[in-house]
Amino acid sequence: MNNQRPLILVSNDDGITAKGISELVKFLRPLGEIVVMAPDTPRSGSACALTVNAPIHYQLLRKDVGVTVYKCSGTPMDCVKLALETVLERTPDLVVGGINHGDNSAVNVHYSGTMGVVIEGCLKGIPSIGFSLCSHEPGADFSAAGPYIRNIVSKVLEKGLPPLTCLNVNFPDTKDLKGIRICEQSKGIWKNEWENFAHRGDCHYYWLTGEFEDTDTDNERNDHWALANGYVAITPTTVDVTAYPLIKELKTWF
Amino acid sequence: MNNQRPLILVSNDDGITAKGISELVKFLRPLGEIVVMAPDTPRSGSACALTVNAPIHYQLLRKDVGVTVYKCSGTPMDCVKLALETVLERTPDLVVGGINHGDNSAVNVHYSGTMGVVIEGCLKGIPSIGFSLCSHEPGADFSAAGPYIRNIVSKVLEKGLPPLTCLNVNFPDTKDLKGIRICEQSKGIWKNEWENFAHRGDCHYYWLTGEFEDTDTDNERNDHWALANGYVAITPTTVDVTAYPLIKELKTWF
Repeated sequence: MNNQRPLILVSNDDGITAKGISELVKFLRPLGEIVVMAPDTPRSGSACALTVNAPIHYQLLRKDVGVTVYKCSGTPMDCVKLALETVLERTPDLVVGGINHGDNSAVNVHYSGTMGVVIEGCLKGIPSIGFSLCSHEPGADFSAAGPYIRNIVSKVLEKGLPPLTCLNVNFPDTKDLKGIRICEQSKGIWKNEWENFAHRGDCHYYWLTGEFEDTDTDNERNDHWALANGYVAITPTTVDVTAYPLIKELKTWF
Repeated sequence: MNNQRPLILVSNDDGITAKGISELVKFLRPLGEIVVMAPDTPRSGSACALTVNAPIHYQLLRKDVGVTVYKCSGTPMDCVKLALETVLERTPDLVVGGINHGDNSAVNVHYSGTMGVVIEGCLKGIPSIGFSLCSHEPGADFSAAGPYIRNIVSKVLEKGLPPLTCLNVNFPDTKDLKGIRICEQSKGIWKNEWENFAHRGDCHYYWLTGEFEDTDTDNERNDHWALANGYVAITPTTVDVTAYPLIKELKTWF
């Protein structure tokens, strides 16, 4: 029998100084031994990016009872890979990303460094969960999420997750949460994504912005609907991206 | 009836000066009007990363009959988003990434900037294909891939692809290609990923490396098997990453 407390690896993409990751550690602390390895600068929009053309480095920031904190010069995915191989003495029971300052539902799952953390944990065969709040405010109020996070994490520690499968959990920005919905990833599209910033000579400068258009409206199964209606959205997410339904058809093409 | 030649947007993650993208343009030129918007520096391992904290810029490099080339300071995904919104006069008929110097089969689909190009095209509703060669050599020989690329692109221009679905095409590094296999994404895991590079004071430096272990061996359906056995591997790939089989089970948890 294993008498050790669960070991939980935590990272994010807003960086080590973000409020969201401190709040997450506070919520998780009663559930296990926590090791944090998070980027030393904000890395929003990192997705599953890796640092391949230069070395990266990490430093121990502090070691308290039950919580050890490192900062790392790499991407969110680098943080997870580096912690798993060089810092942790055993495979963690759980990898957790977040709490992200900003919505990672719908197609945002592809751009999110927080979900990069989760996808890397999942690719390594470890149950993994990402938590995000629909607010970009640095001082956002994460308190309503706390009991939900503890409940979801406890359930995953108890039951595990199937291979190649992780959870993408998003909270609406309200204290009045209506409960949990198990969701599908909303379909939709980002539009008007560039602010014309400046031109210098023949060099054209643009800054990323944009509006998300949900093309899947009134679908009560999707995560965007859940968030818009005050629910916590749990979207089970796979790292096997094979489009199985197309295999048979493609075989007739060649 | 549309008498215009197909418009094909090309990008990559090895950067504008890589041999692979020049070869790709050469192969595609007979099939349509080509616009290239590619990173001005190598961006391997960019995945779906975006530049969110600073403006990016692009410049026209040259405009020949049928081929217009821009370089861009952003990530591969930035390149696609920027070209679609600010450079192209109409929605392209196809987005193509590559030819990547290096294998993007199996779990590498998650780390690949070439597949970032393809995923962004697909998220925008445009048929999209990524091409990669299993060789990291700067002077790699792409010639055997040419006829296959023209065949695959012609088929996709003719038949289209279903919503939320793109193609990840990988070539083994041989002139003796045995034909096309329609594949599933191989399961497997990267191991021994960090080279201990140096330590300065309390700062620990590591450089990314690693060995891929195929945990899915002898599965003739997977892309890793196809490449190891001399076939061109086409893996249909989805951007809807919902893990549908877990939805029912999760509903019993909460």
